[in-house]
Amino acid sequence: MNNYDQDEHDPGVLHRATEYKPPRSLRTWFLGRPLPTADAPHQTIGKAVGLAVFASDALSSTAYATQEIMVILAAAGTIAFGYVFPIAIAIAILLAIVAISYEQTVHAYPNGGGAYIVVRDNLGQLPAQIAGAALLTDYILTVAVSISSGVAQIVSAFPTLFDYRVMISIGLVIFIMLINLRGVKESGVTFAIPTYYFIGIMAITVMVGIIRYLTGSLGQVMDPPTMHAIESAVAVTPFLILHAFSSGTAALTGIEAISDGIQAFKEPRSRNAGITLVWMASILAAFFLAISFLASQIGAVPSEEETVISQLARTIYGGQGPFYLALIAGTTVILIMATNTSYADFPRLSAFLAMDSYLPRQFAFRGSRLVYSTGIVALAAVACALIIIFQASVTRLIPLYAVGVFLSFTLSQSGMARRWWKAGHLKPGEKVVQRGSTLQHDRLWKLKMVINGFGALCTLVVVLVFAVTKFAAGAWVVLILIPILVAVFTFIHTHYKNLARRLSLENYGAPARIARHRVILLVSSVHRGTLAALRYALTLSDDITAVHVSMDPAEAEKVKQKWETWGDGLRLVMLDSPYRLLAEPLLEYIEDVAEKRQPNEIITIVVPQFVSRRWYSSLLHTNTAFWLRMALIFKPGIVITDVPYQVD
Amino acid sequence: MNNYDQDEHDPGVLHRATEYKPPRSLRTWFLGRPLPTADAPHQTIGKAVGLAVFASDALSSTAYATQEIMVILAAAGTIAFGYVFPIAIAIAILLAIVAISYEQTVHAYPNGGGAYIVVRDNLGQLPAQIAGAALLTDYILTVAVSISSGVAQIVSAFPTLFDYRVMISIGLVIFIMLINLRGVKESGVTFAIPTYYFIGIMAITVMVGIIRYLTGSLGQVMDPPTMHAIESAVAVTPFLILHAFSSGTAALTGIEAISDGIQAFKEPRSRNAGITLVWMASILAAFFLAISFLASQIGAVPSEEETVISQLARTIYGGQGPFYLALIAGTTVILIMATNTSYADFPRLSAFLAMDSYLPRQFAFRGSRLVYSTGIVALAAVACALIIIFQASVTRLIPLYAVGVFLSFTLSQSGMARRWWKAGHLKPGEKVVQRGSTLQHDRLWKLKMVINGFGALCTLVVVLVFAVTKFAAGAWVVLILIPILVAVFTFIHTHYKNLARRLSLENYGAPARIARHRVILLVSSVHRGTLAALRYALTLSDDITAVHVSMDPAEAEKVKQKWETWGDGLRLVMLDSPYRLLAEPLLEYIEDVAEKRQPNEIITIVVPQFVSRRWYSSLLHTNTAFWLRMALIFKPGIVITDVPYQVD
Repeated sequence: MNNYDQDEHDPGVLHRATEYKPPRSLRTWFLGRPLPTADAPHQTIGKAVGLAVFASDALSSTAYATQEIMVILAAAGTIAFGYVFPIAIAIAILLAIVAISYEQTVHAYPNGGGAYIVVRDNLGQLPAQIAGAALLTDYILTVAVSISSGVAQIVSAFPTLFDYRVMISIGLVIFIMLINLRGVKESGVTFAIPTYYFIGIMAITVMVGIIRYLTGSLGQVMDPPTMHAIESAVAVTPFLILHAFSSGTAALTGIEAISDGIQAFKEPRSRNAGITLVWMASILAAFFLAISFLASQIGAVPSEEETVISQLARTIYGGQGPFYLALIAGTTVILIMATNTSYADFPRLSAFLAMDSYLPRQFAFRGSRLVYSTGIVALAAVACALIIIFQASVTRLIPLYAVGVFLSFTLSQSGMARRWWKAGHLKPGEKVVQRGSTLQHDRLWKLKMVINGFGALCTLVVVLVFAVTKFAAGAWVVLILIPILVAVFTFIHTHYKNLARRLSLENYGAPARIARHRVILLVSSVHRGTLAALRYALTLSDDITAVHVSMDPAEAEKVKQKWETWGDGLRLVMLDSPYRLLAEPLLEYIEDVAEKRQPNEIITIVVPQFVSRRWYSSLLHTNTAFWLRMALIFKPGIVITDVPYQVD
Repeated sequence: MNNYDQDEHDPGVLHRATEYKPPRSLRTWFLGRPLPTADAPHQTIGKAVGLAVFASDALSSTAYATQEIMVILAAAGTIAFGYVFPIAIAIAILLAIVAISYEQTVHAYPNGGGAYIVVRDNLGQLPAQIAGAALLTDYILTVAVSISSGVAQIVSAFPTLFDYRVMISIGLVIFIMLINLRGVKESGVTFAIPTYYFIGIMAITVMVGIIRYLTGSLGQVMDPPTMHAIESAVAVTPFLILHAFSSGTAALTGIEAISDGIQAFKEPRSRNAGITLVWMASILAAFFLAISFLASQIGAVPSEEETVISQLARTIYGGQGPFYLALIAGTTVILIMATNTSYADFPRLSAFLAMDSYLPRQFAFRGSRLVYSTGIVALAAVACALIIIFQASVTRLIPLYAVGVFLSFTLSQSGMARRWWKAGHLKPGEKVVQRGSTLQHDRLWKLKMVINGFGALCTLVVVLVFAVTKFAAGAWVVLILIPILVAVFTFIHTHYKNLARRLSLENYGAPARIARHRVILLVSSVHRGTLAALRYALTLSDDITAVHVSMDPAEAEKVKQKWETWGDGLRLVMLDSPYRLLAEPLLEYIEDVAEKRQPNEIITIVVPQFVSRRWYSSLLHTNTAFWLRMALIFKPGIVITDVPYQVD
């Protein structure tokens, strides 16, 4: 079996394609067989499938956005619910502005215009890091919020499950993690069915609702759940309205998903992606407005026990019949699928950051199934932690949510505005190649700059509203977390840069050959393992010293006698250790030897180690080599080699 | 500085006395400066100090034994408390039998006659292991019970501390652990003061109590604590009486302490130790009987909130005055000191077991302060776990307690009986040297055999009573734990024995010299660290192959080009890994090379590793050497060497 090929250019290099494929195991059963790099997907999708793949996150927010507006207004009593619909209209207008703004990004960045890339190209590294930190934070929160909301829908239909909501949520996060570790190759169809099912059943529900409203037969919600008792209703202040507005803007999350994934579309991809974005925004706005309007008509109340969607559905359908269950099922499924957008975007963004040396390299390695496994697992772990901390309560998670999204909207739109300004100052025909796109003169640059600038301004206002209204309720966590993340990015970047500089071979003279190799052989007692290590030491150098740390004179005498027989005539040094310390006298001796050495002299410490297949056996022995390595790793020119001797 | 001495017998051996003493640090502040082996204590103690050192465990059990009898009787209502004193008399008789029996052990084993040694000498290995397991279990329970009872006394005086009892108990266990890790050199005086203080204050209390009883002025306890409500009082059955008796036998624990520590006494040590044992048993019996009698006279009730001792003291002294507090303080201190007996005996017994290869060797190493640190820490850890599990409740711990002690009593007395029988069959003047003592003919062997035999029989009956009456309440835990411990001992023993056989040099031919040394150098990329490793590899052998696992063709091309410049003309093998796996293709390659090697050929895998002083940096890199070592450690003839390159 000689499966090497000589390199075509360099006869000194041999190639060998490893045929290694992991055997079937629990791992392959969960995650599937490994995929070769050549299998990376080339498939592209049309508008209809594109809508299904990218809209689940955005559309799913209709499941909780209305309710979260009401939660805030509830502080002023049910009378304040009259503001739900006006606030929803304001949010729908904001949605339109952001969508139009993003439509321009889709055309400018045909290879994918996620906030990190757009900001990095146009505003520089630091703003890009801020955008990256903001987005990572929000992807995690998307998972936590969507899963918690999905489980809240289930609990609305089956109240006995209320006590198990945290456990169910964690189970779902792990389930989706596993699916994503397998890789979502078959995404097209898998996504199309539930997304279109949700769009269909939600459309039917709101239409039936509106018809019943128009015919006057809608009525009020029966047996509404108990709302959290309000001790003394506050007045309806502008602050309260702004606070409710900021909670409702959760509806806009997910709108940026298409700009990240333009590459997945069929050509002309920017056009196709742009049209899909407009569709998505329209459907989202229609559903959100209709749900908000109907919810305030039927007298729905916000509650942890039953969602507003559930109250709406049983009022419209007059009970918990098949249509009710069909809507709850559809909502739950789309909420759970919404997390999949985060599972796609978080690992990809962390891989970008890792390639730019802002995150550990591991985030940029594709796993055996071609996905960024580290990012997927990290996302699931942090989301689970959040779900446990916030007990799967959407209302308690919402104050943390959307801050990051709107911050990245602001940065991204500002970057686009800056881009148009630069484009406007190029000569016609001149081209500037950026990392993410190509810049050229654009006749309409002023209009485009105004559109993106206005988008940036509006979202900036929303960020400020967040910072003020949601600060005490939890937004402060995010506002502290983002600078910390940026600091971590910077630290990692500096580390990799310094390391690369210190390891660089530029202007590096060829290192001198090692002139002398000294070997120190540790002998705790003389047995077959020691002899194996001695035999190995003899191949390394002629300059070998055996060393025994003597804590017990009787034991030392035994070692001495055996060494006379078996020690191959080598010098034995006894380190008498009256304080019965093992490591310290040894370290002192080694440091002493190291100090006295000549230039270009290296010291190898050979440690005999017997090993047993039974892992628990190792608890019965001291692992000298491990501790020595820990203690000596920072000393240059000392190598520690443990020579294993297999006893079974 | 050349501080080596040539060995007087063998000029090839050099001695060096390490002057290494650890610098002052947090560790030395807590545990004290290390002590040289030559400092092992030679001091011996007289009878008065001996009583103080060894009696705290035994005497302290008077603090809870009466109460635990009452807890069981309470099931039949307060009327059953009439049985407290008769049961106490039965226990006192048992105490006398056991004490007389042990008095004979003290004389037969002047070097220390702990149950493990006596049983090993006279009954063999398996019974010795059972005795060892039983004793280890009970030493742990002594710590848990004594500390819990000590804290119960504190809580009786200061009820607000009730909620913190578990925390206080854990704190005390750790505190005593630290004292014992320092080593109890000054034990004489430290022990004498509180022990004699307790004996004095308890003697005054019971005498005042008896005088007040005789003069008819004792009265009843005021505001007794609420007893756990009894739903339907059971009848006073023989089973209930036996159950109460078995709980009360906790009074006997600690009686064996002197037989373990005979070596500490002044000559004639057996005589001194024997007299001390008789004193101790007499004081214990007197206190226990007096407390039991008075408690049933004043109508004390068992309770978790206030101990019987506390009720007794405030009835005798008519309130919580200075005498009351003096007694509670004395009782608390002696209970906490009682655990010190376990802290002395557990590590010593585990060291014996470790020397006989029944426990990991680490238990036999003396720490820097000459104490068996591993045993001390193990004892504290398990005792803390028990206190947490049983929430520092003496009543819940008691069913587990004393089973082990009585089992070891039975085995030890049986061993002594067997010993007299053997001694009786020796010819006068004939001597048999056992490991723990010397056996010779004894005129009174029949009488002595009967005394020890009777002791064994009585304690065996108690063990059986335990097994029946306390089984369901928790004794089953101990009855399962002891066989498990024995199994663990056997497993460890087999492991060490097999290991010694496999490592033995008896009939071992000198191993052949290594004929060929092949080096495989891992190259993930070519940088200064790689060159350092290459430079090292060149000192090992002429047969060096560099290997790169190629997951990315662009990266592989870079490595190839750099290798041409820097690779010293060495062969480079590219392992093309289309599945982006790192370890597996490498392992496959190494196994392939290993299979094809000649006899007496060794393979060294050299792994370049850059190291940074900042530990967290290592999170940013993959630790290839570590994973390879894990994967290859069971392959004979393969050595893995990581060559560190310090980047800062």
